[in-house]
This record gives sequence, C-alpha cells and structure tokens, in this order.
Amino acid sequence: MSTSINLAVIPGDGIGQEVVAQGLKVLTAVLPQDVKLETRQYDLGAQRWHRTGETLPDAELEALKHHDAILLGAIGDPSVPSGVLERGLLLKLRFAFDHFINLRPSKLFPNTATPLAGRPDIDFVVVREGTEGPYTGNGGSLRTGTPAEVATEVSINTAYGVERVVRDAYERANSRPRKKLTLVHKNNVLVYAGHMWKNIFDKVGQEYPEVTTDYLHVDAATIFFVTQPERFDVIVTDNLFGDILTDLAAAVTGGIGLAASGNINPTGAFPSMFEPVHGSAPDIAGTGKADPTATILSVALLLRHLGYEAEAVRIEDAVSADLAERDGTFRSTDAIGDALAARVAG
Amino acid sequence: MSTSINLAVIPGDGIGQEVVAQGLKVLTAVLPQDVKLETRQYDLGAQRWHRTGETLPDAELEALKHHDAILLGAIGDPSVPSGVLERGLLLKLRFAFDHFINLRPSKLFPNTATPLAGRPDIDFVVVREGTEGPYTGNGGSLRTGTPAEVATEVSINTAYGVERVVRDAYERANSRPRKKLTLVHKNNVLVYAGHMWKNIFDKVGQEYPEVTTDYLHVDAATIFFVTQPERFDVIVTDNLFGDILTDLAAAVTGGIGLAASGNINPTGAFPSMFEPVHGSAPDIAGTGKADPTATILSVALLLRHLGYEAEAVRIEDAVSADLAERDGTFRSTDAIGDALAARVAG
Ligand SMILES: CC(C)[C@H](C(=O)O)[C@@H](O)C(=O)O
Ligand SMILES: CC(C)[C@H](C(=O)O)[C@@H](O)C(=O)O
Repeated sequence: MSTSINLAVIPGDGIGQEVVAQGLKVLTAVLPQDVKLETRQYDLGAQRWHRTGETLPDAELEALKHHDAILLGAIGDPSVPSGVLERGLLLKLRFAFDHFINLRPSKLFPNTATPLAGRPDIDFVVVREGTEGPYTGNGGSLRTGTPAEVATEVSINTAYGVERVVRDAYERANSRPRKKLTLVHKNNVLVYAGHMWKNIFDKVGQEYPEVTTDYLHVDAATIFFVTQPERFDVIVTDNLFGDILTDLAAAVTGGIGLAASGNINPTGAFPSMFEPVHGSAPDIAGTGKADPTATILSVALLLRHLGYEAEAVRIEDAVSADLAERDGTFRSTDAIGDALAARVAG
Repeated sequence: MSTSINLAVIPGDGIGQEVVAQGLKVLTAVLPQDVKLETRQYDLGAQRWHRTGETLPDAELEALKHHDAILLGAIGDPSVPSGVLERGLLLKLRFAFDHFINLRPSKLFPNTATPLAGRPDIDFVVVREGTEGPYTGNGGSLRTGTPAEVATEVSINTAYGVERVVRDAYERANSRPRKKLTLVHKNNVLVYAGHMWKNIFDKVGQEYPEVTTDYLHVDAATIFFVTQPERFDVIVTDNLFGDILTDLAAAVTGGIGLAASGNINPTGAFPSMFEPVHGSAPDIAGTGKADPTATILSVALLLRHLGYEAEAVRIEDAVSADLAERDGTFRSTDAIGDALAARVAG
C-alpha cells in the first residue's frame, strides 16, 4: 500500500463521465488525508474516434502503463460500428495489460429490487478469465458479404492461461467462509477446451483440500442462477461464459446499476482496471438518471487491489446502509454520489 | 399429412425410458383411429456403449433415415465420459440429419411455479441454429495434458447455414400475431460471425416488411429474460447461445420439466427429431418423479411437423388445462401421462 495513488481515468462514452465523477468523489472522501491522489483523464471513446479515427494510440497505451490503476466509466456509442471501440479500446486494454482476472462480485443488497420471487440470499463472485477464449479476435471471414461466406471465431485456451485463473479462484474460495468453487464450462460439447479446463481444475484442486468443488455446464448454470443462486460461492469460468453469466447475475441481484468489476493483473506488471459492468446507456446520458453505485463499488475493488482494505470495506458498507435506508424516491446520479461520499467520510 | 406414422423411438438413458413411454401413450390416444402408428425402438445410449463401445453405428443411422420422425428421451450418464454420447450420438444425429432448426418454445403456463416475481406473460419461441457454430467439433488440443497445452474450439458459420435459419425465423414471426423477431449474438466481440449474422438478418428482413426486428447481445438478452421476458416473440440465434438461452427460458417458465424441443429439417430430406430439453436426470430415474410433460409437448411439436395440427393443439390445450387444474399434490410420471392421455382422447 502506497501513500500516493496515481490514477488514470477513462470516463469514455454516454453516462461514463457522470458515473466516474461520482466514483472520484467517493474515492476522495474515503482516502486518508495523508494519501496523495493524482488523477489524469484520458480522452478515449466515441468522440475521440469520430474526431481522429483513433481508438487507443500507442502513446496513450504507453502512458497508461505508468499509473497505479485505471478507473473506466463506459465504452460504446450507437454512432460507432459495433466492435470498433469494444475491440480497439476496451478489450485492447484488457489484453495489453494482461488482465487475466475479471472479477465480478454479485450480492443481493438489502432493499433492492430483484426480479426473483423469494429474495434468495445471493453472495457470490465470478472469476472470469479475461485474456483468452473466444475473445482473442482470432477468426475471419472468407467471401465476405456473398452467399458463399464462411465466418469463423476461434476460442484459444492455454494451460498457462487457465491454470493461473483457476488458481486465483481457488485462493479466493479458500479465503471465504463457505470455501466452495464451481467450474462452469460446456465440456460435453466443447470437448477440447472443456476437458483442459476440467483437468486443470481437478489438478489444482488437490492443493486446496478444504475447498469443495462442483462442475456445471453453462446452460445448467443459468438455471441455478434463477432457481437457486444461493448455492454459489466462487465461480470460475471462461471469458465468454463469464460475460453472459455476470450480466445474468447482475440482473438477479437488482440490476446492472449495482454490478462492479475489476480487470486485474495480480502480478502488478501492468495497472489493473476497474469499471462498472454496465454500458454507456446513451439513452439516459445527461439526464441524471444513471446510478453511479456500480462505479463506486468498482472504486472499492480498486482500493482493495491497491491494499486499502479498510477503505474498500467502508465503501461497501456505505452502499449497503444507503440501500437499506432508501425510501424509493428518485435520487439523481449526483445525489447518490453525495450521499455515499458523506457516509464514507463520516 | 400421411395416414400412417412410422416412428423411431430412442428412449436413451436415465428417465428417458419413462418419459418416452408417456409420450407414446399420449400420441396413441390423440391420433385418429385411421392413422396407423408403427414404432421401432432403438437401443442407443449409455448401456449400449458400455456393452459394445458403440454410440451410433452406421447401420442404425441408415435405418433411422427411413422413419417419418424420431422421438428421443434423454442421452447421458455419469458413467460415460462427458462428450462421448453427446457428440457420438445426440449431436451426430442432429448433424447427420441436418437439423438446422432447433425449435424451442417457451410459455409460462397457468398455475406453474416461475422463480420470477410478478409472473410475467411469457410466450416466445427460440429458433436455435442446429448444425453450425461452436458445435461443429472443430478444434483440437496440442501438447494435451502438459503445462504447454493449447486447446482450440472453432465456431464455423456459413451464409448458407445462417440464411436458412434466419429465413425460417422470419416466417415464424410473420405468422404470429405480434410479428416480432429478435436476433441474439455478440457482434461487438465475435465480429466475424456476428457481423455476418447481422448482415444476413437485415438483408432477409427486407422481404418481411411486417416483422419488427431487434438485436441484442447475448449478455443483455439474459437480463431481459428475467426482467422483461414478455418483450420476446421469436428469437433467432446461434447454436451455443441458443443452448444457453433455452435452459434459462425453461427455468423462468416453470422449469425444465415443461420445455419441449424439435430438431427439425424442414426440407424433409431426413427425419426430424423431437426431445425434451431436459437431460437424463439419473438421480431420479426409476422413482416415478420425472415429469413427462416436456416429452408430451415434444410429441405435439412432432405432430405439428407431420401435419397433424389439430392433434398438436389438442395436446397443448390438454397440458394447459391439466396445469391449470393441478392442486399441487404429487403425481407420478405415469399419473401425469394417464391424465393427459385421457384429456386428449376425450
Ligand atoms: C462491451 C463488451 C466488449 C464487454 C465484454 O463482452 O466483455 C462487456 O459486455 C463486459 O461484460 O464487460
Ligand atoms: C446434451 C447437450 C449436447 C445438448 C446441447 O448442448 O445442445 C443439450 O444441452 C441441449 O440443449 O439439447
């Protein structure tokens, strides 16, 4: 834990700017007086692309390397062709900085609206692989646009990549009270990648005798997410399955407005990046309707990653208390940020 | 519509035998007296594999070709390595008989338990591509079992394969009152396959000016499945996304015990195959606890496919009425089959 934080901020598109402002407000409020916070904003996203055609120039990628961490708002705009900013900016950062742990906790906070009847007790974390699988950009298209087109997408999986994320997930499971780890894949169909995942999962498991393990096919996992989400503690899964499952997890725990995430490189070789799971929501940008809680909870993950455990817990407790006391009247983005900043400072 | 049906029956594993027996009971009860039903049972699945090492020998594949349709119970057993029966039998049939339409209706019947609060009005159908995508078995593993292993899975998509399933989905949407079709993919990451799907979807859509269209990324689609499932009418999607979404759809509409499916080759070149979405559930096999309704609803899809529309509707209405009058006491597999057979005969 350093006594200064040199933070890169990428507000991005749509509501990104608004939610990041609240994240920074709470970060400033929670940090001890003697910790020096330096921030540098990066102008990346749809506007930059429209202006210059650039998504993430080398100079900026280089500059980003020298920060302790990155806080990102949201990337994407309907005016930009699908994939350009996702692949050219967001995934480029995840891959360039080798963010192999995509950490996504899911908790049903008190007093939040879940679509599930019976309000099950949900508190699990998905450890999503972040640098392999179908996200590598490998594939292509032949005879594009003709009736004879063939398009491929190649999922690449390495023992190196799978073992490190599986090991991280065992460590997390081992440090939680329930000590339970579920592998999700589809090894009855994707037999090559699926069997490698399962074999490595079983092998690494021998080093964690106290962790109870379980395997589910991804289709069956979605059933349990809605019928029995309390059965999960830690889940480890591939990049694409993790993408799908964590949106579903956000939905059942009260919506994407509360779902935080960290793109983590635990080796420290590159800065880790924290962002809400939600997108840029251009339809509500500028209206003050965006919920900044997901970004604020992402700031908690950022603080935990940098060694500020007490401050991370203070933010999480503040969110819990804030939601518990909520009376259902509308609060603006700014008002929620103010309320949480006041609580963590208090 | 023929005046005889020559049906192949593959009971398969676990509860397969029990639920198929009820499906046949209802089929016999619903058919007009002058329709001759011939059935031939095929001994395929885990027991056969243990006995002979075979999953689907050429002679049986050849014999199956000459039936009007196939009714399948369930395939899979924990005593068989994951993937052996799935790839060697179930998927082999879907691919050999070019079942490019994997049809999976989802309806929240009256009086069934959904995990969703508020009991939304759910009535949609997923048209899942059945012969391409990540299910082709393309891929491999290098340096298997070593720390240097690389495993790949290749999703193969052709304009030929995508156009025919997209066109089928437009036809279905066009014939339904709401006339709405949603494409689900992940074209911001899987840009090669995703853009091809989207381009073909848009192109074919020009021929169906009355159909309202929509596009969702698969992760966002899972959110709407639990927060707003009533927004869907017809969904068209890739093989793997369809696999995941239809299990989730089954869960929100009262469980996998009610979810029917058809693996359809609309050209008639090969027999189509009808099966419940659920698996072989070895834990409850032989206990009389299996719900045969999914199989019985699959028989309705089979009848519709063979031109017996009135009989298909009779089964579906019987299931609706039966569920509506259910009082919550336990009924065995057999008792449910008897009740439905009595209703459709009456
Ligand atoms: C925007 C998109 C590329 C991204 C992903 O697929 O990873 C998003 O859905 C997420 O979950 O962070
Ligand atoms: C058993 C398995 C191969 C199959 C699939 O993945 O298609 C099943 O999950 C299904 O949905 O029919």
